[in-house]
Amino acid sequence: MLVDEQAYRSIWQHPEKPGCVQIIDQRQLPFRFVIEDLEHLEHACRAIRDMHVRGAPLIGVTAAWGLYLGIYQLERSGTKPALQHIDDMIQQLLDTRPTAVNLRWAMLAAKQQLEKAEAPFAPLLEQLAKKLTDDDAELCHQIGLQGVSIIEAIAEEKQGEPVNVLTHCNAGWLATVDWGTATSPIYQAQARGIPVHVWVDETRPRNQGASLTAWEMAQQHIPHTVIVDNAGGHLMQQGQVDLVIVGSDRTTRGGDVANKIGTYLKALAARDNDVPFYVALPSSTIDWTLERGVGAIPIEERSPEEVTRVSGTTDSGEITTVQLTPENSPAANPAFDVTPARLVSGLITERGVCDASKSALLALFPEHRDSWQS
Amino acid sequence: MLVDEQAYRSIWQHPEKPGCVQIIDQRQLPFRFVIEDLEHLEHACRAIRDMHVRGAPLIGVTAAWGLYLGIYQLERSGTKPALQHIDDMIQQLLDTRPTAVNLRWAMLAAKQQLEKAEAPFAPLLEQLAKKLTDDDAELCHQIGLQGVSIIEAIAEEKQGEPVNVLTHCNAGWLATVDWGTATSPIYQAQARGIPVHVWVDETRPRNQGASLTAWEMAQQHIPHTVIVDNAGGHLMQQGQVDLVIVGSDRTTRGGDVANKIGTYLKALAARDNDVPFYVALPSSTIDWTLERGVGAIPIEERSPEEVTRVSGTTDSGEITTVQLTPENSPAANPAFDVTPARLVSGLITERGVCDASKSALLALFPEHRDSWQS
Repeated sequence: MLVDEQAYRSIWQHPEKPGCVQIIDQRQLPFRFVIEDLEHLEHACRAIRDMHVRGAPLIGVTAAWGLYLGIYQLERSGTKPALQHIDDMIQQLLDTRPTAVNLRWAMLAAKQQLEKAEAPFAPLLEQLAKKLTDDDAELCHQIGLQGVSIIEAIAEEKQGEPVNVLTHCNAGWLATVDWGTATSPIYQAQARGIPVHVWVDETRPRNQGASLTAWEMAQQHIPHTVIVDNAGGHLMQQGQVDLVIVGSDRTTRGGDVANKIGTYLKALAARDNDVPFYVALPSSTIDWTLERGVGAIPIEERSPEEVTRVSGTTDSGEITTVQLTPENSPAANPAFDVTPARLVSGLITERGVCDASKSALLALFPEHRDSWQS
Repeated sequence: MLVDEQAYRSIWQHPEKPGCVQIIDQRQLPFRFVIEDLEHLEHACRAIRDMHVRGAPLIGVTAAWGLYLGIYQLERSGTKPALQHIDDMIQQLLDTRPTAVNLRWAMLAAKQQLEKAEAPFAPLLEQLAKKLTDDDAELCHQIGLQGVSIIEAIAEEKQGEPVNVLTHCNAGWLATVDWGTATSPIYQAQARGIPVHVWVDETRPRNQGASLTAWEMAQQHIPHTVIVDNAGGHLMQQGQVDLVIVGSDRTTRGGDVANKIGTYLKALAARDNDVPFYVALPSSTIDWTLERGVGAIPIEERSPEEVTRVSGTTDSGEITTVQLTPENSPAANPAFDVTPARLVSGLITERGVCDASKSALLALFPEHRDSWQS
């Protein structure tokens, strides 16, 4: 997508330098657009661990590139990587974000390929990383093509008035390789000339809406307005929201959706005001082993410092962190919540839009029909 | 209530210096506890306008003291105040916060008294300001005595486990003279030895929960935990909230409640999880002219800067404001929302707890039976 009028992905191979991968240091957004070179395994590990990159799909892809970089450097120095080398590297990458599912999945794919291959391994890993990168972009593109019909239908009713879409957190292209999930239908709508306006929830505590989604929208020239997380219900009451689209960290086979904390509150408000509430997700995030999510999906409790402190830029342009709460007031920080399927109007997947129900999901993904009954 | 183990109100006469009123400069909370002397009308105007004091009841009381200070200084200098003087002073005070209802009401009460009185006026205005101050404290005390029964009943069921109360924004003693509205039943519970724990919504954009309510709780030694506004729904799903109590800026005769933006979302979550949702309010905030609130109560749209920027302390202790959003992303900032009566379990007033309905409100306040039918 566009940054300073140029097309970017969130990760790419350096156009001239072999053995170099480039990312956007997302910690510095929206204040500075900084491109970072990754040339060693350790660079990739640090980028994932310290959240230069974030978002499950992008973490997986970055790890695949990290393994390539590690092996590339080794083979370039004349060392033939032993399986132990490779296992060590994979473990280092796995340790960066212990709960990231896509990371484990990418490492498993690499391991399987290497076990049946001959050195040099670097070209093979380069091909794998390229494929994962392109596959993710294509998957997100498909989600956009499937989801845009929902926006199109509302646009027809609104006869030229902009379609007001509310989104929460950043399920945008910065969390994936390109297009994003919740944002992908919005970008498709823009491409088709459908007028859209996006309400961007700031998404406390980490403010990924205010810092990342708003930045994406501004760069892509999509009309948008940042609001506090408290405002969405009121806007729906006032008829100022036509549609909610959010992403998902994990979706059960029954259609319950675990996503960034606060998603559930927006789903309740959408239901109370007859506003359609859609969830965009790649099918890889469906947990076919779970029917219901509330109480079953473990909710990560993150550092209270994310609540008690916030970062931004001072008037002199310095990025600074300030304390918001009294010193002796504790804070709690559950990172996700679960929106029950009954509040979800539909799921936007790469294969189509369906009801948030087991039967509808299985109709789109019949290969999973028996996957949880073992 | 307690500050550094000493009992305070939010406004009081200087114990030694005549013609001097003291307030807490609330802009500096929770980081610094600064007492400010008001000795001139202009001091009071600035304190209200620049939000050294805030909260409808406290604004009204501060204005009453401000008028006293203005007249006191004038009479002390030997000038007999003409009616024109008094009107000018009242106008200055009214101009500080144009929409504050209690401010207008306090000025009207002063005007009525002065019109039938003889100079010197200062002693009269001092008596009036004292009375308004004490009346507000007593009103809030009554709200606590009425509301504590709700907490008591839950405590009995919980058999010694703490009662978890969630509150939004600051409807605490800092917004009134003493006790607060939503917090008053909590303080009464504490006084009766009922174990309570308070979930404090940070309440973006102005963070009155994180900065003021949390500070009140910490000073009063009430166990509490600050959470982002997004978290309450999840906590209710997990059974971690027994009761919600919020304040109200305006309540219609039908029981609809205008309160700080985001209140409606918590009411929806409470209903979805069978958590009782109560609103504490002095009857002076009931708008008997309105039946329904959504669309009828005008919602103040405040500066987008409250969304795009936030203040806190740096590690070196300096109070600093930082920018959170991209420079070219607009923001919207509706300050209140309306919670429909159907989501309200009950209203806690100074005369008792009642259903959020016209018939129940009129049973408690029969003197208003015909007030809107003119």
